[in-house]
Amino acid sequence: MAFMPDASRPTPDSLQKLVLPEPLRLDCGQVLEHVEIAYETWGQLNSEKSNAVLVCHALTGDQFCASENPVTGRPAWWPRMVGPGLPVDTDKYFVIASNVLGGCMGTTGPASLHADGKPWGTRFPVITIADMVRAQRGLIAALGIDSLFCVIGGSMGGMQVLEWAVQAPEQVFAGVPIATAARHSAQNIAFYEIGRQAIMSDPEWKDGAYLAHGTRPDRGLAIARMAAHVTYVSESALKRKFDRGLQDRERTSFSFDADFQIESYLRYQGRSFTDRFDANSYLYVTRAMDYYDLAAAHGGRLSDPFVGTPVRFCLFSFSSDWHYTPAEAMAVTRALVAAGADVSHIEIETDKGHDAFLLEEPGFESALAGFLTASAKRRGL
Amino acid sequence: MAFMPDASRPTPDSLQKLVLPEPLRLDCGQVLEHVEIAYETWGQLNSEKSNAVLVCHALTGDQFCASENPVTGRPAWWPRMVGPGLPVDTDKYFVIASNVLGGCMGTTGPASLHADGKPWGTRFPVITIADMVRAQRGLIAALGIDSLFCVIGGSMGGMQVLEWAVQAPEQVFAGVPIATAARHSAQNIAFYEIGRQAIMSDPEWKDGAYLAHGTRPDRGLAIARMAAHVTYVSESALKRKFDRGLQDRERTSFSFDADFQIESYLRYQGRSFTDRFDANSYLYVTRAMDYYDLAAAHGGRLSDPFVGTPVRFCLFSFSSDWHYTPAEAMAVTRALVAAGADVSHIEIETDKGHDAFLLEEPGFESALAGFLTASAKRRGL
Repeated sequence: MAFMPDASRPTPDSLQKLVLPEPLRLDCGQVLEHVEIAYETWGQLNSEKSNAVLVCHALTGDQFCASENPVTGRPAWWPRMVGPGLPVDTDKYFVIASNVLGGCMGTTGPASLHADGKPWGTRFPVITIADMVRAQRGLIAALGIDSLFCVIGGSMGGMQVLEWAVQAPEQVFAGVPIATAARHSAQNIAFYEIGRQAIMSDPEWKDGAYLAHGTRPDRGLAIARMAAHVTYVSESALKRKFDRGLQDRERTSFSFDADFQIESYLRYQGRSFTDRFDANSYLYVTRAMDYYDLAAAHGGRLSDPFVGTPVRFCLFSFSSDWHYTPAEAMAVTRALVAAGADVSHIEIETDKGHDAFLLEEPGFESALAGFLTASAKRRGL
Repeated sequence: MAFMPDASRPTPDSLQKLVLPEPLRLDCGQVLEHVEIAYETWGQLNSEKSNAVLVCHALTGDQFCASENPVTGRPAWWPRMVGPGLPVDTDKYFVIASNVLGGCMGTTGPASLHADGKPWGTRFPVITIADMVRAQRGLIAALGIDSLFCVIGGSMGGMQVLEWAVQAPEQVFAGVPIATAARHSAQNIAFYEIGRQAIMSDPEWKDGAYLAHGTRPDRGLAIARMAAHVTYVSESALKRKFDRGLQDRERTSFSFDADFQIESYLRYQGRSFTDRFDANSYLYVTRAMDYYDLAAAHGGRLSDPFVGTPVRFCLFSFSSDWHYTPAEAMAVTRALVAAGADVSHIEIETDKGHDAFLLEEPGFESALAGFLTASAKRRGL
């Protein structure tokens, strides 16, 4: 995969993988004959195979929630949440995390090779969140696990949690959707569309065939990352962290340099992202998020697919999150209650915005730990 | 100017202009020897020259607030506000509007010719809101007007109103800053930086010398417009207007086409913008906005430059405006009250976001009409 710059590191292809034994039928109608799922695990599966937790990652995340990613060298992305003695306790649970279908960290996606030996590129079928979950279900089955103790994830990961509960309610004991929604809003579609246009406008994108051409639409991908990143942070957090502070200078330069810290920060976010993410994957995964509308996929009423669900839910939202607002979580909660589900929703008061679920939020961590402990007790763990 | 696509229309160079009699000294320290100001007027200046109203335009606006722009063919941008019998009544007032310094509708800017006969491009000095107002003051003086009855404007136009009151308090009877702020927030800098990076990343930008090269960084400029445009509309208005509605289709296409109305709308906004705006002007004008921090420019306290001001102020903000929030207007109001100024602030309840000042808002229009009528009475008009 051409986007990894450091030749001394392993490639995504060298990561732990499993080939799905069956072809994968997609929402678009196409069938993927060969699907590889890259995944990581932590902890031990108990003899009853009843202590498995599936962690679902967000748009730009990967399977390395609890350990360093050897490909990028980046640390675990959920170090406060998953590990020994942490809320998702790897001393107690068998934790699984896989790279999503369409991703670029080893799982089959647009940067993977097609049967013809050339990268899929934009020949890869457009996928959905439901397709991602179908692929995960194949992984879980192949690992010999009938039922998950918990499915948990934030942002796009939370969409997968909801989708798991709909597709396989008998296989999920507890579901924890965090900082998420049951449908992508027009504003969110807008931000991702800006990013896709930036990528597809980059001449180096080559109609999606940049890997074959040996080019990289890094400039477009960096713009896309910048446009998305600004939605992950609240206005008040930007003010607290940067405000109008200048970067390494006493006064403005009267130029188009990165005078302001916020400019320097955003440029860095954009630039560094291109070292670890594939531009076509960005198109596919954002498209899957845009297409996500759980109610529409089930006749129009959000409660319908949950009627009679045995899944215990605990939703978390963050007061300053304007990417997926607390109101979105409340809409899901309302539908779940209407469906007769066992559900709590906790809105955490914070100024950290959408990214709060990845950051230090003691109230979030303790509530989640309590929910998991109580759920484990009910499960007899 | 190369960005105008329709050869049958006049060019910005052919518009009504005035050459400033003096060189213009800029905040950056440079001096512009030759400055042309393109402007329009409506109504009649009275014999006391006491009925002049200056309308200041926003980032992508121009001098055609009350009549069609002959260059672009676009209608007047403030048709509900400026005209016979309207709040800014051209039967009563002599209304002046000029294209800002650094703009691209006839006033000197980066697309204008340098003394060497080639376009300025990025050799043009980086300008500030204060510089724009200095240029306007030159225009007003050249028109033989000592004192303005009113300076009015929305968004970046509102910044100019505040700046006028600071630079020339004795020359402004009433000031109406609308949907604006006294400083650009980190979030706003972020959105404009995304746009600038999109333009400067476009290979057709040619380090700013695209006019000389005969190229056009249209793709970058369109992305910039899309990223800004999304901040001009509230989330609730996007939901009301578009939600997840599909564009000319029954179901999603499983492709990267503009399936959703919001995508189609944004693409149109981006594409059409490149027909009427110069990419380098976009860089310069957004930079001027980012640099705007009225308090910092006057020792750090926002009230200081207004102490003892004779200007009567009326500020307007819009409840769902997240580009320049009501809280920003309240901060200006607080500073003006602390400075002893005569000031009202009206927050209009609306879901239309920042763009509300350009749209139908009866409460806004009637309050503004009342303020102007009362002010005219005090002025003896």
